[in-house]
Amino acid sequence: MTDRSPLRDLSAPPFATRHIGPADADQARMLEAVGYESVADLIALAVPEVIRAEGPLDLPEAASETEAIAELRELASRNEVLTSMIGLGYHDTITPAVIRRNLLENPGWYTAYTPYQPEISQGRLEALLNFQTVVSDLAGLDVAGASLLDEATAAAEAMTLARRAGRAKTPVFVVDADTLPQTKAVLATRAEPLGIELVEADLGGGLPDGELFGVLVQYPGASGEIKDFRAVADQAHERGALVVAAADLLALTLVEAPGSMGADIAVGSSQRFGVPFGFGGPHAAYMAVREGLQRQMPGRLVGVSQDADGRPAYRLALQTREQHIRREKATSNICTAQVLLAVIAGMYAVYHGPEGLKRIAQRTHRHAAVLAAGLRGAGVEVVHDDFFDTVLVRVPGRAADVVAAARGKGVNLRLADADHVGVTCDEKTNADHLTAVWEAFGLTEIVLDDLDTATSDALPAGLLRTTAFLTHPVFHSYRSETAMLRYLRRLQDKDIALDRSMIPLGSCTMKLNATTEMEPITWPELAGIHPYAPVDQVQGYLKLIKDLEGWLAEVTGYDAVSLQPNAGSQGEFAGLLAIRAYHRANGQNERDVCLIPSSAHGTNAASAVMAGMRVVVVACDDEGNVNVGDLSDKIEKHRDRLAAIMVTYPSTHGVFEETITAICDQVHEAGGQVYVDGANLNALVGLAKPGSFGADVSHLNLHKTFCIPHGGGGPGVGPVAVRSHLAPYLPGHPLEDGPVGPVAAAPFGSAGILPISWAYVRMMGADGLKAATEQAILSANYLARRLAPHYPVLYTGREGLVAHECIVDLRQITKETGVTVDDVAKRLVDYGFHAPTMSFPVAGTLMIEPTESEDLAELDRFCDAMIAIRAEIAKVASGAYDRADNPLRNAPHTADCLVADDWKHPYTRTEAAYPVPALREGKYWSPVRRIDQAYGDRNLVCSCPPLEAYED
Amino acid sequence: MTDRSPLRDLSAPPFATRHIGPADADQARMLEAVGYESVADLIALAVPEVIRAEGPLDLPEAASETEAIAELRELASRNEVLTSMIGLGYHDTITPAVIRRNLLENPGWYTAYTPYQPEISQGRLEALLNFQTVVSDLAGLDVAGASLLDEATAAAEAMTLARRAGRAKTPVFVVDADTLPQTKAVLATRAEPLGIELVEADLGGGLPDGELFGVLVQYPGASGEIKDFRAVADQAHERGALVVAAADLLALTLVEAPGSMGADIAVGSSQRFGVPFGFGGPHAAYMAVREGLQRQMPGRLVGVSQDADGRPAYRLALQTREQHIRREKATSNICTAQVLLAVIAGMYAVYHGPEGLKRIAQRTHRHAAVLAAGLRGAGVEVVHDDFFDTVLVRVPGRAADVVAAARGKGVNLRLADADHVGVTCDEKTNADHLTAVWEAFGLTEIVLDDLDTATSDALPAGLLRTTAFLTHPVFHSYRSETAMLRYLRRLQDKDIALDRSMIPLGSCTMKLNATTEMEPITWPELAGIHPYAPVDQVQGYLKLIKDLEGWLAEVTGYDAVSLQPNAGSQGEFAGLLAIRAYHRANGQNERDVCLIPSSAHGTNAASAVMAGMRVVVVACDDEGNVNVGDLSDKIEKHRDRLAAIMVTYPSTHGVFEETITAICDQVHEAGGQVYVDGANLNALVGLAKPGSFGADVSHLNLHKTFCIPHGGGGPGVGPVAVRSHLAPYLPGHPLEDGPVGPVAAAPFGSAGILPISWAYVRMMGADGLKAATEQAILSANYLARRLAPHYPVLYTGREGLVAHECIVDLRQITKETGVTVDDVAKRLVDYGFHAPTMSFPVAGTLMIEPTESEDLAELDRFCDAMIAIRAEIAKVASGAYDRADNPLRNAPHTADCLVADDWKHPYTRTEAAYPVPALREGKYWSPVRRIDQAYGDRNLVCSCPPLEAYED
Repeated sequence: MTDRSPLRDLSAPPFATRHIGPADADQARMLEAVGYESVADLIALAVPEVIRAEGPLDLPEAASETEAIAELRELASRNEVLTSMIGLGYHDTITPAVIRRNLLENPGWYTAYTPYQPEISQGRLEALLNFQTVVSDLAGLDVAGASLLDEATAAAEAMTLARRAGRAKTPVFVVDADTLPQTKAVLATRAEPLGIELVEADLGGGLPDGELFGVLVQYPGASGEIKDFRAVADQAHERGALVVAAADLLALTLVEAPGSMGADIAVGSSQRFGVPFGFGGPHAAYMAVREGLQRQMPGRLVGVSQDADGRPAYRLALQTREQHIRREKATSNICTAQVLLAVIAGMYAVYHGPEGLKRIAQRTHRHAAVLAAGLRGAGVEVVHDDFFDTVLVRVPGRAADVVAAARGKGVNLRLADADHVGVTCDEKTNADHLTAVWEAFGLTEIVLDDLDTATSDALPAGLLRTTAFLTHPVFHSYRSETAMLRYLRRLQDKDIALDRSMIPLGSCTMKLNATTEMEPITWPELAGIHPYAPVDQVQGYLKLIKDLEGWLAEVTGYDAVSLQPNAGSQGEFAGLLAIRAYHRANGQNERDVCLIPSSAHGTNAASAVMAGMRVVVVACDDEGNVNVGDLSDKIEKHRDRLAAIMVTYPSTHGVFEETITAICDQVHEAGGQVYVDGANLNALVGLAKPGSFGADVSHLNLHKTFCIPHGGGGPGVGPVAVRSHLAPYLPGHPLEDGPVGPVAAAPFGSAGILPISWAYVRMMGADGLKAATEQAILSANYLARRLAPHYPVLYTGREGLVAHECIVDLRQITKETGVTVDDVAKRLVDYGFHAPTMSFPVAGTLMIEPTESEDLAELDRFCDAMIAIRAEIAKVASGAYDRADNPLRNAPHTADCLVADDWKHPYTRTEAAYPVPALREGKYWSPVRRIDQAYGDRNLVCSCPPLEAYED
Repeated sequence: MTDRSPLRDLSAPPFATRHIGPADADQARMLEAVGYESVADLIALAVPEVIRAEGPLDLPEAASETEAIAELRELASRNEVLTSMIGLGYHDTITPAVIRRNLLENPGWYTAYTPYQPEISQGRLEALLNFQTVVSDLAGLDVAGASLLDEATAAAEAMTLARRAGRAKTPVFVVDADTLPQTKAVLATRAEPLGIELVEADLGGGLPDGELFGVLVQYPGASGEIKDFRAVADQAHERGALVVAAADLLALTLVEAPGSMGADIAVGSSQRFGVPFGFGGPHAAYMAVREGLQRQMPGRLVGVSQDADGRPAYRLALQTREQHIRREKATSNICTAQVLLAVIAGMYAVYHGPEGLKRIAQRTHRHAAVLAAGLRGAGVEVVHDDFFDTVLVRVPGRAADVVAAARGKGVNLRLADADHVGVTCDEKTNADHLTAVWEAFGLTEIVLDDLDTATSDALPAGLLRTTAFLTHPVFHSYRSETAMLRYLRRLQDKDIALDRSMIPLGSCTMKLNATTEMEPITWPELAGIHPYAPVDQVQGYLKLIKDLEGWLAEVTGYDAVSLQPNAGSQGEFAGLLAIRAYHRANGQNERDVCLIPSSAHGTNAASAVMAGMRVVVVACDDEGNVNVGDLSDKIEKHRDRLAAIMVTYPSTHGVFEETITAICDQVHEAGGQVYVDGANLNALVGLAKPGSFGADVSHLNLHKTFCIPHGGGGPGVGPVAVRSHLAPYLPGHPLEDGPVGPVAAAPFGSAGILPISWAYVRMMGADGLKAATEQAILSANYLARRLAPHYPVLYTGREGLVAHECIVDLRQITKETGVTVDDVAKRLVDYGFHAPTMSFPVAGTLMIEPTESEDLAELDRFCDAMIAIRAEIAKVASGAYDRADNPLRNAPHTADCLVADDWKHPYTRTEAAYPVPALREGKYWSPVRRIDQAYGDRNLVCSCPPLEAYED
């Protein structure tokens, strides 16, 4: 009998062994370095017993990659992809294949982080600047941001911007009756806690009487009608109010820009610029404002500045506006943008250019015009004369029948009401679709070509666009596929993403985004579904969503999950809204105090304010833990008005606070609810469940803990999970009534990327998820042990252990040597690394989170770099390096500056370029030197600069 | 009435506008520079009237990218993907998703050219070295090549290698009766023209008596049986013959290596190392040989050498063996390797490592062993006791029924004959498959787990592998997905492919490989089909192949096309075989003279020899044209034995020879056939058809003219097209009898990549294809005009026009300055370009082919570089640059050498690094300095070198 192993021992190693970086032997070495016999020993000490969950997670047994893909294919096959003519702000579009493959499906783009380190982000910053230029050009406004979450939330942000920027002191905000219904619903959700009074009005006859701080017009309207809102804008301005136009970017290539018509703010979606439906998202919304409002804008803004050599360089501008700095004084809780999608939309415009976009718009419009003419010619009533892509048809009593007939022909129409059908054309509309629609209306004899010849355009003659747009060369240079391919490659090569090296960002969890998780999102059966497609056509999606909700509930210990919030900030807001609604349902309207530890992420406070709460800050002790005494005092003081406490666990300092359960009990005893911010859930998965150890609600970050990539700064997904008593108050469907309104435009938010997290959980299973958490904790402790002899490590728990991240303290070093956190961060670029999180949660420190996906070789490479940098700092301290002119202060070094014929620094080129020999095997070259942040804010430029700016 | 355009004017610009680089305005500028009013004017002069085709190509109207993808999805849906247990050298396998996305679907890998310029090819050369190491380790032989076309042709190459390397002078080659049937068929095709006598024998009882020059054993056999061939090897060696083992790489992880058993040569397929079926290919075959035979090996060989700084660097070794140098003295016509697929197979081994491969092999084997035990236990006869993955089952008279029953359960088995069924397990086999197979045999009660426990392995005890393999660190370092992702990125970043810059290779046509063309090839419905799957399951493929054959016939003016040849060289061979068979069918066996102009690519001559012809060289005149006088003389001289003339059109010198039709007439008149080499067909498509202007047969290069990417040096596809009188003599099906045998293992060769060319023709249509040709000619002439003031342009036709490529002559410059073609080529690397073709067809020249896909900006960037280099040469001439130490001679410059603290050259760093300012915006950095070719050949190392080699 020969050697043999039974089949069960010959299965492929589970996916977890590919997801988790260190192999068994390396894990053993790391344990030895940290001083533990086993992972279990380490975890037993690192994670407090009091929060530990008993038993394994109740999840399906881990599937292999092959099995998971097969299951996803089966789910996808349960969706039915019909031609969508539903409209309502979502339009079918052709993603150019070169952009899909080389951008949307390319880890060089999708695994990048938010461009907070601008030197290693020049590629995506340029791409975002293109997007901003598209938006500001088309909107006819001065400054556009780098994208918002969706059109509805962008409209809500515009509303609050108008309130704080406008002169009028009234709570009234007027909303065009022809606004997209989901936008109205989200505005209502957002207005109520802030005391804003929404007044809906048909603006056809001008503004309703009375005071208002702002007005929103939909342009074109949900019904398709294009209204001339210039008179309304004048009236609003006369009353001290600001004008918001929610405008369709494609329509703006043909009709007058909102900025030219009096809008102060424009918002909308860029989805139809090449971004698939994805059953609702993710898509990039936009906002543009007139000069003077840019410092009030929510979200991120890319601007042009210059580097240490005086060359143009991009970076995020005006960051002092942002919520993580302004905390409870923030005016928005928006952190994430929709970078990956904004970049796609920008590239779509680059690839088509202005004349291409115009042609697409004209074709879309002509189809609508011809469609309408066909209907009218046959005696069917078309409601509006002026429209862009949407034809509203009046068929008294027959609307449902028409919609059903069209569905039978493979076309989804919009059932506006019992008497009206909406038909929306888009880039993909063709003659067959028109024929199908006509047939659905009972018309079979129409000859399209004849009609085409006989039919005029249906755009309002007085509103035809006359101003130029996209005149910058970037929109005229990349028209062949080869040229676009190389442009994408060139930009990608400027950046550091996860495909090049570790991105050790504390609190940001840059773990593997596995290919098997990513592949399904561009399958037509998942990408091609309109968010309001009929339920019977989306059974695959609904099953996937139900699975994922259930698994997340199991992982977190909660009873119900909503996947609607399309960013962590929105999940926070939704969670707080649930708490608010719960108190109100119990007749405790007065409960509006939200306790927030001083160590919290600024977004917490901003969200609380948006949810109508008053923020009361709780002090932290020297270890970064909640000061229990202060907490008790604050609870006592606000006992009757206590709504909630928001606490991050493990803490933003990377520590498992031992007191967490006591805190929960104390707050509950006072009638408050406990919100555990799930930002650091990746340190708990499989080990502890917030819903079980005392919390009532959490939001999670699927884009961190559950492997949705950061996309260069979005998309994010921030589900909210609650215990059963809060379940009735989860966000409602945007087109249906409920106890709490929606927080996003689409019922399941960014549904198109949920397959990523589904696949992750499905392939990891209970054991894999737990092992990932354990490895993340081990890796953080390994890093802490290796770095501790060189840098003080802040905030440790029992036995000097950290959780899943560790903070190294530069403050004393800075004091002694002048070398700052910034210097170390930029010097790491020379070593080929993205910097850790800088000065959060403590100024003057670096917070490092290795994640479980980094293997030992990469962890050591990073430690070696940090240790080598420490030696460089020592040379500054000893005087061996000049205090002002040293490799740290001058970092990053470009090839350009290193090859310069005149090298004027007192250290050598080799010291600058190759401080460790391994860099000679393959070095990342920063495309710019250190960027002057202040210069850019003083000289704000937020669209593509003229080419002359790049001349030497 | 408002402005309007009718819908027909609003269609998306055709795909051709994305494929062709220069937009209309740029085309106009180029015409002006060349001095013509219109493209038509230029073409009328450039392309001789005598060959011009009348009227447009008769092809379907061009489809948009969206339409083409929809049609391909429809075709794909007509294929039925069953579980394949057919075996016969093709096995299902799991392509790791990280490798699929980041290698197979990544233009950074697939658009690369053959690594003839090693400095910009270090990434794929390292990947190929991994492949070679896998092969030589597993085969237990000293030297492995960088891949061959398929197992059957590799076996044929081994046969001819054995003939020339062996001592025995007999024509007998013995073939194991248990050899794969397609291998036997290809051996027969290849043996006959060379006078090799094949003797098939059951080697179980040893070698048959008599002389032989070689013997081929299949290990394991087609029947699954594993034979100990050590005695056979000893006998063969005693008789002066060489031993070839056709071995399964996966099996070799468990059983003794062929090299340890006496094989001198091992061949086989690496397909099951992660490369999809693709209905037959492309897959990388391998060949490994014992020390002493490496200079006889066909195909490419990667070796380690060193660069100008003495650091290890990779390049193709022993190139003096290659057919383009040895011409009619060549022993093989192989040019292309299967680089992309070899790289995948190598990465599969890197990702799994030796223990992972062994586990996959054990699991595969256990399934087979348990399957056999289940059958035997139920009284069904299993023929062999020792096997790896294949179980041959004897079911007298019932085989067809069993196969049909299995098919009903979703499993394809092999119908070996009326009484035998073959069942082959693979990486994907699972318990459900075994159950389905048992049920097909009528067995329903088998409990797999019990059987598993009770069943021994079925490997021959005396042949268990004891030697280690894949001990090099590269096979132990990239086990997490993150690590593999970064390894792939790091290698990719070392290379120049089309995603970075123009690759202006004369005669190699590096045009766009559009994403829409590439996307379908990894769809499961196209990738997952076994080449011998039943016809009713492959209707989509058959339709696609029929379409493509028809379109290619229309484009070339021939009557019939075979897509079987999986490289241009194989197409040549097939075409010459057709000529040979035709003459024989006409009773003219004596016609064996093949006229070949001296300007021809060396492969022509090599192919002719393989087809049993005698090569007679025809002189060329000073302009590179066929010397008509010499041609007449040679025709006269060989009139009675004239078989054919092989002529490339337009010529390898890039000229449309005016005499081509006269040449055709003259040869026909003498009873010969005209073979037009289609290497330059891209200069004819839509303008002229070889089949119409006088030729009888051509091969095409789908990987050049029809957009299949070069893949870093393969796959290629070389269809052969013939007029009707030759149609009966096209290559036959490998498993069926026919007048001419097969030239490849799979009936349609590399069928899996035919969708690329299908999509190209479908989206270009007649107008687009013609426009591409015209633009290619215009671009070549534009380049020639811009470069002519700086470099002499060789070989022009009427009005000084070139065809689709131009040759610049460095010979005088070299004479005057010492600056060589090599210096210019390497200096172009510093400018970010891949060099043009060097010293072909004329030594001391550069042949430049821009292709139609390069836009004007890129063409100008290249011209600017060439002109700047000319100015540098002038500095050498004037003495401003040192003759021995100048930027040309020292090129390429690495960042490493430029940043060195001691810069010892008489020119500046800036001159070296940034000779033109645009390079500062994004420079490609060569990873090595100039590579010493001779050093590597003197010190041959063809597998991964130890890490110490990289130490400074």
